[in-house]
Amino acid sequence: MTTFDLVIRNGMIVTATDKYIADLGINGSKIVEIGTNLQGHETVDATGLLVMPGGIDGHCHIEQEEADGTIHEDDFVSATGSALLGGTTTAVCFASHVPGRGLVEQFEAYREKGANSRIDFAIHQIITRTDDQTIHDEIPIVAERGAAGLKVFMTYDDFHLADGQFLQVLEAARKSRIIVSVHCENYDAIRHLILRHLEEGRTEPHGHATSRPSSVEREATYRAMTLSELVDQEIQIFHVSCPEVAAEISRAQSRGVKVVAETCPHYLTLTEDALKRDNFEGTKYICSPPLRTQAQQEGMWSYLRSGVISIISSDHCGYTFDGAVGKGRHGRDADFSLIPNGMPGLGTRLPVFYDAAINSGKLDLTDFVRLTATTPAKRYGLYPEKGTIAPGSDADLVLWDPNRVVTITNDLFQSNIDYTPYEGLTVRGWPTKVFLRGTLAMEEGKLVAMPGAGKFLKVRPS
Amino acid sequence: MTTFDLVIRNGMIVTATDKYIADLGINGSKIVEIGTNLQGHETVDATGLLVMPGGIDGHCHIEQEEADGTIHEDDFVSATGSALLGGTTTAVCFASHVPGRGLVEQFEAYREKGANSRIDFAIHQIITRTDDQTIHDEIPIVAERGAAGLKVFMTYDDFHLADGQFLQVLEAARKSRIIVSVHCENYDAIRHLILRHLEEGRTEPHGHATSRPSSVEREATYRAMTLSELVDQEIQIFHVSCPEVAAEISRAQSRGVKVVAETCPHYLTLTEDALKRDNFEGTKYICSPPLRTQAQQEGMWSYLRSGVISIISSDHCGYTFDGAVGKGRHGRDADFSLIPNGMPGLGTRLPVFYDAAINSGKLDLTDFVRLTATTPAKRYGLYPEKGTIAPGSDADLVLWDPNRVVTITNDLFQSNIDYTPYEGLTVRGWPTKVFLRGTLAMEEGKLVAMPGAGKFLKVRPS
Amino acid sequence: MTTFDLVIRNGMIVTATDKYIADLGINGSKIVEIGTNLQGHETVDATGLLVMPGGIDGHCHIEQEEADGTIHEDDFVSATGSALLGGTTTAVCFASHVPGRGLVEQFEAYREKGANSRIDFAIHQIITRTDDQTIHDEIPIVAERGAAGLKVFMTYDDFHLADGQFLQVLEAARKSRIIVSVHCENYDAIRHLILRHLEEGRTEPHGHATSRPSSVEREATYRAMTLSELVDQEIQIFHVSCPEVAAEISRAQSRGVKVVAETCPHYLTLTEDALKRDNFEGTKYICSPPLRTQAQQEGMWSYLRSGVISIISSDHCGYTFDGAVGKGRHGRDADFSLIPNGMPGLGTRLPVFYDAAINSGKLDLTDFVRLTATTPAKRYGLYPEKGTIAPGSDADLVLWDPNRVVTITNDLFQSNIDYTPYEGLTVRGWPTKVFLRGTLAMEEGKLVAMPGAGKFLKVRPS
Amino acid sequence: MTTFDLVIRNGMIVTATDKYIADLGINGSKIVEIGTNLQGHETVDATGLLVMPGGIDGHCHIEQEEADGTIHEDDFVSATGSALLGGTTTAVCFASHVPGRGLVEQFEAYREKGANSRIDFAIHQIITRTDDQTIHDEIPIVAERGAAGLKVFMTYDDFHLADGQFLQVLEAARKSRIIVSVHCENYDAIRHLILRHLEEGRTEPHGHATSRPSSVEREATYRAMTLSELVDQEIQIFHVSCPEVAAEISRAQSRGVKVVAETCPHYLTLTEDALKRDNFEGTKYICSPPLRTQAQQEGMWSYLRSGVISIISSDHCGYTFDGAVGKGRHGRDADFSLIPNGMPGLGTRLPVFYDAAINSGKLDLTDFVRLTATTPAKRYGLYPEKGTIAPGSDADLVLWDPNRVVTITNDLFQSNIDYTPYEGLTVRGWPTKVFLRGTLAMEEGKLVAMPGAGKFLKVRPS
Repeated sequence: MTTFDLVIRNGMIVTATDKYIADLGINGSKIVEIGTNLQGHETVDATGLLVMPGGIDGHCHIEQEEADGTIHEDDFVSATGSALLGGTTTAVCFASHVPGRGLVEQFEAYREKGANSRIDFAIHQIITRTDDQTIHDEIPIVAERGAAGLKVFMTYDDFHLADGQFLQVLEAARKSRIIVSVHCENYDAIRHLILRHLEEGRTEPHGHATSRPSSVEREATYRAMTLSELVDQEIQIFHVSCPEVAAEISRAQSRGVKVVAETCPHYLTLTEDALKRDNFEGTKYICSPPLRTQAQQEGMWSYLRSGVISIISSDHCGYTFDGAVGKGRHGRDADFSLIPNGMPGLGTRLPVFYDAAINSGKLDLTDFVRLTATTPAKRYGLYPEKGTIAPGSDADLVLWDPNRVVTITNDLFQSNIDYTPYEGLTVRGWPTKVFLRGTLAMEEGKLVAMPGAGKFLKVRPS
Repeated sequence: MTTFDLVIRNGMIVTATDKYIADLGINGSKIVEIGTNLQGHETVDATGLLVMPGGIDGHCHIEQEEADGTIHEDDFVSATGSALLGGTTTAVCFASHVPGRGLVEQFEAYREKGANSRIDFAIHQIITRTDDQTIHDEIPIVAERGAAGLKVFMTYDDFHLADGQFLQVLEAARKSRIIVSVHCENYDAIRHLILRHLEEGRTEPHGHATSRPSSVEREATYRAMTLSELVDQEIQIFHVSCPEVAAEISRAQSRGVKVVAETCPHYLTLTEDALKRDNFEGTKYICSPPLRTQAQQEGMWSYLRSGVISIISSDHCGYTFDGAVGKGRHGRDADFSLIPNGMPGLGTRLPVFYDAAINSGKLDLTDFVRLTATTPAKRYGLYPEKGTIAPGSDADLVLWDPNRVVTITNDLFQSNIDYTPYEGLTVRGWPTKVFLRGTLAMEEGKLVAMPGAGKFLKVRPS
Repeated sequence: MTTFDLVIRNGMIVTATDKYIADLGINGSKIVEIGTNLQGHETVDATGLLVMPGGIDGHCHIEQEEADGTIHEDDFVSATGSALLGGTTTAVCFASHVPGRGLVEQFEAYREKGANSRIDFAIHQIITRTDDQTIHDEIPIVAERGAAGLKVFMTYDDFHLADGQFLQVLEAARKSRIIVSVHCENYDAIRHLILRHLEEGRTEPHGHATSRPSSVEREATYRAMTLSELVDQEIQIFHVSCPEVAAEISRAQSRGVKVVAETCPHYLTLTEDALKRDNFEGTKYICSPPLRTQAQQEGMWSYLRSGVISIISSDHCGYTFDGAVGKGRHGRDADFSLIPNGMPGLGTRLPVFYDAAINSGKLDLTDFVRLTATTPAKRYGLYPEKGTIAPGSDADLVLWDPNRVVTITNDLFQSNIDYTPYEGLTVRGWPTKVFLRGTLAMEEGKLVAMPGAGKFLKVRPS
Repeated sequence: MTTFDLVIRNGMIVTATDKYIADLGINGSKIVEIGTNLQGHETVDATGLLVMPGGIDGHCHIEQEEADGTIHEDDFVSATGSALLGGTTTAVCFASHVPGRGLVEQFEAYREKGANSRIDFAIHQIITRTDDQTIHDEIPIVAERGAAGLKVFMTYDDFHLADGQFLQVLEAARKSRIIVSVHCENYDAIRHLILRHLEEGRTEPHGHATSRPSSVEREATYRAMTLSELVDQEIQIFHVSCPEVAAEISRAQSRGVKVVAETCPHYLTLTEDALKRDNFEGTKYICSPPLRTQAQQEGMWSYLRSGVISIISSDHCGYTFDGAVGKGRHGRDADFSLIPNGMPGLGTRLPVFYDAAINSGKLDLTDFVRLTATTPAKRYGLYPEKGTIAPGSDADLVLWDPNRVVTITNDLFQSNIDYTPYEGLTVRGWPTKVFLRGTLAMEEGKLVAMPGAGKFLKVRPS
């Protein structure tokens, strides 16, 4: 009788397809056997729990350098700690492309920063310049060295590419067989609307929402898909915020355009009304695209069910409320256009989405795994090591108690970020243990994995 | 060390999500373990082969009684033999609802006919009458006794329901928590067009296609979805033949209508030109909805990729070319409207679809399993016993050689039907062994399973 | 210098294209000259007034016989009086097709009833049966004798045609080159929903709205357009009630289907909330399709601007509130399904629509004339005699004071119907004089035209 | 009896609404009377002829200065001569906005150039810069001085505006109540595709079509409509080339966006195959957007019928085939990207469109007048002086022989441009006389109007 290093006994195994009760036999970092009555040197009883692939968060801004030299306050140690506390074992995060240094240099530097990660990580490489060196020399190298994808912004002063630059990136991506993910909002239109807001004295945080109406997201999405179609290169629309945008994506998919899409828990659970909270609290909800209305939120679910949107990520982008480079960087009366865009979400992603999707009956458990782990793993070249439960896959596992009721508070996530937008929200369903490559990494809200426990995931071109 | 009854060694296991090389350990009828170096009293080497869930054909007309008392020539012995030879281990077939006998009586009689089946089977119950007894008394009983779904026809003289009757069935289905599948073509419009064809002397087989243009399918689909929306009852659109219909389904899904869809290999590989073959051969390709054009065929694939259409079935409906109740029943010069509608496809479904989808790169292996086994199993309440490879599931398995090149000929399928519409088609990828609940049922084109090897699958309401 | 019989001096002439100040010279029944300083035996000063083609109401139920032998209470004398008081000089009304008598007989009988009309009238011929005599013998005769169009119902117990019958009518219409107008609601679905309402005790008037949701209108419209497409025969969708339906019509028009559409002032100015009025008053607003929501109402205007909907008619169908065959026919506590469907609107059509469209700036004056007179005239074969102001056209004219403010009350219309749904509504813009074929027919709210002043308009096939 | 200066007797008057036989009485430059048996000092017999408003060509590049200092070879004398020979009496042409000079200066200079015009003209003011002076000071002045509209390019090296600049123009236009017309093609995408063509050696004229696929026009149109929606300013999409673009416009119109559209005869009668003609002849058909396929051409008509596209203009942009600044400017082997874009069409617009639309039965005569004269007049603020036949309107008239058969050859148009793309095309329907403000301007192919006969039309803001 084989004795495994570790056996997870009698849990309800959930994959993107299947649900069944079984034991998992793990040797070293790998799942090697799925069966019954398996024997292990160590045994964890999972009776009554769900055993799911560790969450894969495909969209996390961690310890990222901005063009102005500031660094995101949530560093690899802190951010990946909150990830584990929420059930996530892999993050795909973003290497910058700030002025003055080459792409490869920045990719490598970021990879090294990741040495502090408590969880495994892959890297999206941001592209903000399209000089010959970047396009012809460095993108191929970065792809060769294992970037999970390229990231292009259609908005933001320091990041946005013109359409011609975007096309260059798409061609480079096609040659290097790497996906391009896109932040779709029309830069010029937003800049124009912000200017109008400021001229009219509408400087309060809610101006962030009204200066970025869904039409500017819809337009940019339409444009991005057209450019993708011209080059015949697959793209991913990041953080779709509303059904109007999803409808355009669905139309494009139907006529054969290679486009896939992601959304985030906040677009499914929060609304723009949050931006009206007083005492500057509205700034906690500033992210881009902005939160939308209740009606738009409700319209999103049919696109998750039909598969038009196929990934749930956090778009974790932690800025403190009170810290030096956070929301209040420019003072408590700063106009909305100066507030850093982004909300923390690495830790809360799985519990918040689970509660919204599963307890409501809107989706089922296999959908949950598909959207939060399996499809991200496949899309970013991490599969089959990551994203599923099968012999040969990494033993990245989350044990999930579907009956645990928890009221979310920021303290639960031991994060560098001093708030969570879900403060006070009560959810049912919570991770109780997390294993990373066969090793216990989190247990009952306590971190076990040390900084450095994670490793860089080098992605093979598709 | 556990010794399993049977071990399938070293194959590439494929599920709707995963592909990995492993051994399967089988005890009795069940998969009990997935791992490596498993020991079995019996061992089958699957090196170099795909090991997939046995095919589930969700739409098969077998030994079915027509209103005129004739019985489909392909009986349970013959049809399920060809199923096994093509890699299929479960069929969902149709109990009639002919005049003069009650629904339960016919359901039970059909279930008993199935005692001769070589493979497992479930039953769609056709509904052609909506008297109080049928709706209020018998549909609940049939659901209770395990029908997989109800089937409604919007066309055909002997079958079609008026919209009011359809609504009654939808309400009964909702109460009994059972899905309703629909043949969508506008009966009146077709009858009208057939009459015009005959008046104009257009009696040749190709008149079958021109008298059933895609608009009559599109209209009926739109109507069926509206009725479903009124009652808030899920429906399935059977055998979608063209992208115009799929586009309407996609629109409905996006606005939240509970509608799913199926198509068949022939709509992806054959065109209406086949109906023009001479010597009455065109009649071999008469099915409803009819085959469409090349351009329409090509437009279907994006809907398979996006998930708008989520099942591939055969719509097997075997009529001999030369037999007494077959295509020539009314003579070799009969007008097209008298020719029985339907083509054999149980045996060819998997190889033909595999070749069209996988060898072309249009879909990948997990899609193949999803469309031909997993989703049918889930939709018809057969999961998790059927449709996947996981501990606890039935050991219904097909070993598939992805490199085997075969030229299809009807002889390969030992069927009662004397032709196949794919005669002469060369495909790559072929089933070499099939197991039904742990027992070898087919091996290298030879049937092993005897009539009666299959069993009735009683479905629990969803 | 020519002296005309009548000169209308110095008004603002408005056609579907033009607005200009001029004199009209009229001899006998005809406009013969448009110029300045025209001399007339009689002169009417129109300074400061609009001079528009007399309104053409393309959809009026007047003195119509029902299948049960009752006759609509608003007879030709009464109804055409209210028409004149509201500025309308031509009505297209409906000859019945009740059981037991032939189509031609009923057409002729109805034409004779019209001898009492105060205004000119044309006839839509309703078709409720499709026996050979009707289709092959009588429809051609009725077309030959000058019917303006055929009318088909997809709902109502006594009227609705099955799709096959509808197709027969479409073919007959194509042969006789006559348009087919359609009441689009799904009969079976409504009957089903009414039954559910009654079972659940939801018998109050508002049940009329909830038992006829927009989806049943949308479905029937889609179906009617498909049938029209099959036969390549132009159809008109009558009384479009909501933008969901208009959107489907727009899609069909874009792909070349020959379909045009009409709506009515009540769908642009009233909402389903009116059906909730107490004391049985809600029944005054029972019409089919039912009134919709405020949001749906607002969505209609873009379809009027773009031309998807091109006619405004009244769908006048007067039932008294208190009379013997009126709303309370079955008692004041009758369930909604027993209340006759229809609202009076011949008199109020132009003032109500003018106020809603023109004073709001939603449309301009040429649109008003186009929608209420010119397009109806062209569509029903009455042009160029009717529907415009040009040499050779009938001198059917309304002098309209754009500054007259009037609070609508039923007394203004001297109708047989004892209520108006617009009671108490204050509008700006009102007809002050009406001429029918050169003769004064209404002046300052007083009828001048006697019964019999109107004549039957025999339409030539298009 | 009044005696008019001029009477046009007994023609078939055609307006956008009406067709009737009458005499027109003209005094000086104005139509003053429409009637019968009018007496004139001069009389023109129009029996058997159509009498229509003189054509208004809303989109003509005449004697326009390019950024490189070259001037379009077709000057006001020549171009307006060919206009008259083809039945057009008003042109809306384009004042440049080249570097180094102010907007007002260029508007005034262009207006003065127009002193040589044989026909009346209005001016679209092109905007290529958006500095404060242009936006805040000069656009208001140009609007005040009577510009018909502003013109924005989304493509072309010397012209294209970024989205932010486009928004500034839209806001300025809203304040000055002036329409903005847009050339919609994605500049960056085209530049990218041209570069790829040149890299691959695909330099032949047909590369012009393949480097500007309909998707780049569709995208830019979608974007322009979104920007218009943000500012709530009406725009016009110029020269829609294909139904894919029209479909997006229709969708936007339905949801209330203020957008109107124009197309040109060449998109309805020529196809991209013309670009394949050898001996450099393909360059004669280079225009932007490029000619499309036969199938796309056929799909355009339903959008003309439904009103989604509401103007037919020429987009006259004459470059000689052999002249110094013409198609061969860079030599007979120049790559396609160097060939000036544009085709002559002022003279041929009416005959070519008449033949395609009217003789085919696709549209009727009132549509012809609406699309080619009335709607342009209304849209550009020229109505009611121009664009219709009514008392008070200018006597700009074309007498049109519907039975005249003519084979088009460039000689017919006495143009500075040495070719017509319609050389050899035989059409039925031709202008025989043209009057400009009551004075004979063209007769039987002979110009009567001298240079300077035309005048500048100062437009009032809407």
